[in-house]
Amino acid sequence: MKLNKNIETILGCEKEYADADIVVFGAPFDSTASYRPGTRFASRTIRAESYNMETYSPYLELDLEENSLVFDAGELELSLGNTQKTLETIYDFTKNLINDEKLPFMIGGEHLVTLGAVRAAAEKYPNLHIIHFDAHADLRDEFLGTKFSHATVLHRCHDILGDGRIFQFGIRSGERAEIEWGREHVRTRMFDFSGLEKIIKTLADVPIYFTVDLDVLDPSVFPGTGTPEAGGVTFNDLRLAMNAVSAMNIVGTDMVELSPPCDLSGMSNTVALKLLREFLLALSANEK
Amino acid sequence: MKLNKNIETILGCEKEYADADIVVFGAPFDSTASYRPGTRFASRTIRAESYNMETYSPYLELDLEENSLVFDAGELELSLGNTQKTLETIYDFTKNLINDEKLPFMIGGEHLVTLGAVRAAAEKYPNLHIIHFDAHADLRDEFLGTKFSHATVLHRCHDILGDGRIFQFGIRSGERAEIEWGREHVRTRMFDFSGLEKIIKTLADVPIYFTVDLDVLDPSVFPGTGTPEAGGVTFNDLRLAMNAVSAMNIVGTDMVELSPPCDLSGMSNTVALKLLREFLLALSANEK
Amino acid sequence: MKLNKNIETILGCEKEYADADIVVFGAPFDSTASYRPGTRFASRTIRAESYNMETYSPYLELDLEENSLVFDAGELELSLGNTQKTLETIYDFTKNLINDEKLPFMIGGEHLVTLGAVRAAAEKYPNLHIIHFDAHADLRDEFLGTKFSHATVLHRCHDILGDGRIFQFGIRSGERAEIEWGREHVRTRMFDFSGLEKIIKTLADVPIYFTVDLDVLDPSVFPGTGTPEAGGVTFNDLRLAMNAVSAMNIVGTDMVELSPPCDLSGMSNTVALKLLREFLLALSANEK
Amino acid sequence: MKLNKNIETILGCEKEYADADIVVFGAPFDSTASYRPGTRFASRTIRAESYNMETYSPYLELDLEENSLVFDAGELELSLGNTQKTLETIYDFTKNLINDEKLPFMIGGEHLVTLGAVRAAAEKYPNLHIIHFDAHADLRDEFLGTKFSHATVLHRCHDILGDGRIFQFGIRSGERAEIEWGREHVRTRMFDFSGLEKIIKTLADVPIYFTVDLDVLDPSVFPGTGTPEAGGVTFNDLRLAMNAVSAMNIVGTDMVELSPPCDLSGMSNTVALKLLREFLLALSANEK
Amino acid sequence: MKLNKNIETILGCEKEYADADIVVFGAPFDSTASYRPGTRFASRTIRAESYNMETYSPYLELDLEENSLVFDAGELELSLGNTQKTLETIYDFTKNLINDEKLPFMIGGEHLVTLGAVRAAAEKYPNLHIIHFDAHADLRDEFLGTKFSHATVLHRCHDILGDGRIFQFGIRSGERAEIEWGREHVRTRMFDFSGLEKIIKTLADVPIYFTVDLDVLDPSVFPGTGTPEAGGVTFNDLRLAMNAVSAMNIVGTDMVELSPPCDLSGMSNTVALKLLREFLLALSANEK
Amino acid sequence: MKLNKNIETILGCEKEYADADIVVFGAPFDSTASYRPGTRFASRTIRAESYNMETYSPYLELDLEENSLVFDAGELELSLGNTQKTLETIYDFTKNLINDEKLPFMIGGEHLVTLGAVRAAAEKYPNLHIIHFDAHADLRDEFLGTKFSHATVLHRCHDILGDGRIFQFGIRSGERAEIEWGREHVRTRMFDFSGLEKIIKTLADVPIYFTVDLDVLDPSVFPGTGTPEAGGVTFNDLRLAMNAVSAMNIVGTDMVELSPPCDLSGMSNTVALKLLREFLLALSANEK
Repeated sequence: MKLNKNIETILGCEKEYADADIVVFGAPFDSTASYRPGTRFASRTIRAESYNMETYSPYLELDLEENSLVFDAGELELSLGNTQKTLETIYDFTKNLINDEKLPFMIGGEHLVTLGAVRAAAEKYPNLHIIHFDAHADLRDEFLGTKFSHATVLHRCHDILGDGRIFQFGIRSGERAEIEWGREHVRTRMFDFSGLEKIIKTLADVPIYFTVDLDVLDPSVFPGTGTPEAGGVTFNDLRLAMNAVSAMNIVGTDMVELSPPCDLSGMSNTVALKLLREFLLALSANEK
Repeated sequence: MKLNKNIETILGCEKEYADADIVVFGAPFDSTASYRPGTRFASRTIRAESYNMETYSPYLELDLEENSLVFDAGELELSLGNTQKTLETIYDFTKNLINDEKLPFMIGGEHLVTLGAVRAAAEKYPNLHIIHFDAHADLRDEFLGTKFSHATVLHRCHDILGDGRIFQFGIRSGERAEIEWGREHVRTRMFDFSGLEKIIKTLADVPIYFTVDLDVLDPSVFPGTGTPEAGGVTFNDLRLAMNAVSAMNIVGTDMVELSPPCDLSGMSNTVALKLLREFLLALSANEK
Repeated sequence: MKLNKNIETILGCEKEYADADIVVFGAPFDSTASYRPGTRFASRTIRAESYNMETYSPYLELDLEENSLVFDAGELELSLGNTQKTLETIYDFTKNLINDEKLPFMIGGEHLVTLGAVRAAAEKYPNLHIIHFDAHADLRDEFLGTKFSHATVLHRCHDILGDGRIFQFGIRSGERAEIEWGREHVRTRMFDFSGLEKIIKTLADVPIYFTVDLDVLDPSVFPGTGTPEAGGVTFNDLRLAMNAVSAMNIVGTDMVELSPPCDLSGMSNTVALKLLREFLLALSANEK
Repeated sequence: MKLNKNIETILGCEKEYADADIVVFGAPFDSTASYRPGTRFASRTIRAESYNMETYSPYLELDLEENSLVFDAGELELSLGNTQKTLETIYDFTKNLINDEKLPFMIGGEHLVTLGAVRAAAEKYPNLHIIHFDAHADLRDEFLGTKFSHATVLHRCHDILGDGRIFQFGIRSGERAEIEWGREHVRTRMFDFSGLEKIIKTLADVPIYFTVDLDVLDPSVFPGTGTPEAGGVTFNDLRLAMNAVSAMNIVGTDMVELSPPCDLSGMSNTVALKLLREFLLALSANEK
Repeated sequence: MKLNKNIETILGCEKEYADADIVVFGAPFDSTASYRPGTRFASRTIRAESYNMETYSPYLELDLEENSLVFDAGELELSLGNTQKTLETIYDFTKNLINDEKLPFMIGGEHLVTLGAVRAAAEKYPNLHIIHFDAHADLRDEFLGTKFSHATVLHRCHDILGDGRIFQFGIRSGERAEIEWGREHVRTRMFDFSGLEKIIKTLADVPIYFTVDLDVLDPSVFPGTGTPEAGGVTFNDLRLAMNAVSAMNIVGTDMVELSPPCDLSGMSNTVALKLLREFLLALSANEK
Repeated sequence: MKLNKNIETILGCEKEYADADIVVFGAPFDSTASYRPGTRFASRTIRAESYNMETYSPYLELDLEENSLVFDAGELELSLGNTQKTLETIYDFTKNLINDEKLPFMIGGEHLVTLGAVRAAAEKYPNLHIIHFDAHADLRDEFLGTKFSHATVLHRCHDILGDGRIFQFGIRSGERAEIEWGREHVRTRMFDFSGLEKIIKTLADVPIYFTVDLDVLDPSVFPGTGTPEAGGVTFNDLRLAMNAVSAMNIVGTDMVELSPPCDLSGMSNTVALKLLREFLLALSANEK
């Protein structure tokens, strides 16, 4: 017999690196998680769940095998407990992808991983804007004595981008101070996706980093996250909003904060994987 | 003292066999489950949960004790791992029930158990049609190297019934090939129950086998199933749709794919039991 | 160093007793729970979860630290298995709070704990009325051979208050007899909160005891309860209804039937805590 | 077809009542449990697990089907939250069994259920002695403001039997006061079963009530209990000790404190069921 | 950048196929499991857990990276529900490995998978003997109406090998009939490994298929299995016994019946992986 | 009424700070955990479990209320994700305790927290030695790209103390390189506590920091830890070994690596709390 080593990839992400236009990779880091950790397991769980989902989308009538060119780069090896080194690793990897003209698609991990990728994207695209879906504003300046935390990550992105470049949707949690700070420096739509279509039009030609904190979903749909926040959006709300954003000029993207150990039923894993499939197909359709 | 042996029945299914017009029984088989097994525990779990639910429906203002004649036949003894023998056991038992002029009401188990009951019903009623509620099309011709699988069961039913006799609702998952095959051979309503009322009228006098795969529900409502699919219907959607179907000429029915171990909160068990109660009452009301 | 003993309070309930106008306390009793016990852990779990939620409400734009005066009295020490003694302990404590002109806010425990508090409130306010949110009517006269049970608690309250003083919302479960009894003696709105606004106006000046059985929520939102009932209200439905009630003349209130062990994801705990925060803020805003 | 109602019995307990010499029954009560409740589910869980264990013992080379005469009376209907009524129900049922010359074998529930059975046995056998296996002394006079609790049950038994009639083994937990009280009034062997053989000889002809609190086992073997205590005995230790006791003149017995929800692996259920099988076979062998 | 597809292997099994002398592969099949299914997840779980264990054994002072030549072939694709086809797939694959002069090391799956590998090994080695570690005799002739089941697998092996070729250790469960059948046709050591050393000497030059059902371990050590049996051996007992067997002329081997979903703590996964490491190292040391 | 704020302390640790000779505190940090995080919840879980355990030890016949002077300082507020800042916070707090002539007793958290306390102790006691109980050597120089990790903590302690000052017991896991490094620089007893008594005598007058990684216990006893290692010591082994060490000149101590989410049965929490009680009593007895 001839046998090759055992290869495992995320659903339908089976192209060679050279042929791919999108590169998915895991960023298994949750060291700053202030409540229940576990997001470090998200990307490898999504990979493991992949053998159980179809590559075909009945919503889009497209199939990952035929209609996308995605490579799965596996997991980054990150320094748990060493936040700066972790951010550098993510920055370096993302930068290399961008230089190779791939679209980086990172799967967290906690939300702080976004900062590493945004640094790389902003370096390449000085006019970078961020579309941010989340339950939490993540705009604190400091949290638990550190500037680098899942709770401060958008404030750190603002350090790079400045005022008026960050557009938040679905926010329903924050301390008074950060919400007030947000009113002056970013554009925040509370609770839902109202106004998204208009902003998509306004920013039609601008390079976009799109970050989706999956806890924007209602916990009934997505209990598998460290800090569930009641009152969120539905699966179809989020699917459609992500589909709309896919038409923008996206230069980097991520999905973060799935924490598999928080949901023993496993349904959160399948929700995340299904959103990933739909978004990869939508991105691929727009690519052409 | 005089003491009898310990009898356990499903909620309100306490009539004698001779007096019953509906017979509920468990088909604890999940050998072809391709992802997370566990549906074998569904019927006995529903029986065990029964002491905790009222027999009275506030929706229908009817009570199982007064308004129904249902016998609980307990569990079939099935040959796990031996699919053909299992299907024969189900076929034989269902056939006997039909011969005794009882309405068979099977509780799965995985969806393949439906095939055994449909064989018996189609034999008796050559003009049998199927109403099928599900998240998955289950129309593959082969899966994992076998023709007999939860993923092929409706294709096997089509082998018996032929084109135009199967009506699917709520479907939101399938591979491209089976969805396309379905377009030619069955009538599929994607995502929801639109058009159900019209089909009920069209098929008013036709003998109907009605199969409900409970994963047609959204996973937020019903995480206790092996392959949860985001984007499903609500409890009230399904309750009302089942209620509507109860007015048809139903000659056999089942509820499948509850997998108790997948939902440690137990709420899926109570959802299934409540739908069972509502549907038994609706069937009984139409019987008269 | 100078170090004080370790103090733990519910989210934002950090005022001194003398300064507080609302007093929150736990009533960890679940001895009559007929199905899955565990509500005894609710109040201490809510306290433990508190370090993970913001004190600020983005709905009300108010903050517990600035906009409320709440004291957390910790846990009552109740006699598990001794129902009468437990009710007396709750009665005594509530009476003392009322005498001190505090608003008692009890966190169950099972629903029977309400009876102890209602006794104290009715003694002080002979014209007491009850607003009752619940999935279950709780109107049986006897259950499992006892008059004092979570399933009889509103009937016992009726013993004190008499006809026409109890207003139920969201009810979707009961046996036929209790539902029929309810039609004559209390006002029951099935399934939802329709008509609540009108009743709030009608009872504008009447002293109100407000009891919220959290299982009025749909199990998808709130699986962490002993007897989940499909078909319930959403988080926002309940939040808004509680907000509306907060404008009434509330002289005592409780939130009951959170059972943390029933929901390993923990989301039910956060739902309960968030509703507590919103309701405390709404009450405090009305207080002024 | 002729079909009978669904009968479910504990493993091998399938004789008719009239023919049985041992009667097993469940006492699903846990209202005084001071920590994690759940023992109410023990007897029905053991019944449900029974289809998965052999009736044959490779230790004794005996088979329940051939070598025992046991009837399973199912579950007592107990008044949760009403301790006195519950004890009376147990007392009445046990008394009837004794009058019918059956050996009562109760499956708890919490340890307080023993008191009901001991009352009946002591009435019939004034010289009753108790053999007590447990991790906890259960000798408090009062606990949480009540005289009737799982923590006081052996003290209550002592109220009936007086000094020198209770023999405890395996005890490794208690407050100082109850341990000291025990030194004067009962015979306590700490930590293990040393001295058991001698006591068996001494009490050879005395009527014995034998109560086994399964938490005498080490939590590694038996995590499924409300108050696990490290440092307990092994499965084989307990099996052999119970086997030795089976040779005494046992007039009543129980196994208590299995709490299925505390052990999601289910192994505690099988440990309890296996000990039940071994003990029933040993009792039956001695009966002849 | 140059990036390769994501490769995942079992701990230290990282050689190329051509260079390997041992080939590990998964046989994810549990269709005949009569109680709690889930062993289908064993091999992929062991692979996923591998990144968390050292390749170095402090017992043997050997390291998989330096001291072994093992290839991980990944998962066989088996026909769930189609037992015969599954056995053929295993037979074919094992036969190819033997023809390539590799030692097949299968990770179940349920115990029936052993039959496929034994067929291939017995074909090549007509004098094949089996060393069998297990809690259960697995010697039934038929179970649940089928000849092919985890409960009959050693009887089916006996069909091939005949009397006196199967040596069982650790057995502590069976029905009377199969235990008695076993006394005539196989050599069974009940409860432990006594006599193993002697048999190893006696069979020094005979080709051995060695099958380890991990439920031979006590459930306290290994709760992660479908049918836990109290009274088993310790981790060190099993490690040493496997080490002893490694010196025999092993021509095929397997480890079966790990069921990850049965043990949420995950410790059973690590026990299985550690035994795998130790056994691979012991086999490799003997190879040289 | 007069009511004080809700105080919660660890079992029996109820003295005032000024009166205490031992100070227990939590160090809820697990940012470098390389596998399953969750130890951050250990100290608060132990506090919450405390209401369910007796203060009296039947082993020592001593009671925390009468025979100890312990203050519970609650939880340190640590910077998750910021390892250096966290170690400084621990260092500062420990130093203050030592200056106040208290014995610091830290409850982790992951093992890296030990480094902060050892820094403070070594500063005060230049001749500090370490007694280290653990399954893992924790002697790597670097792990996942960082020098500061649970896997390197004893190497970092060696940086401070130098050769021959660290005595390890129970070790059964490590990579080859660290085990070999350990042979030259520390004294390691593999697998068990052999030789402990001799070392206790040898180091009778030396200041000792005693660190107990609870995963030295066998996972059957203590599954509630991130990296369970089969083949560990029993509860009584560890209890007795800790008791022996309590007679040394201990100047600082900790218990680390309990991870409550890893053990849903909760027994690991009670094992940790019981060992804490026994060790506090033993320390207090030696203090006098």
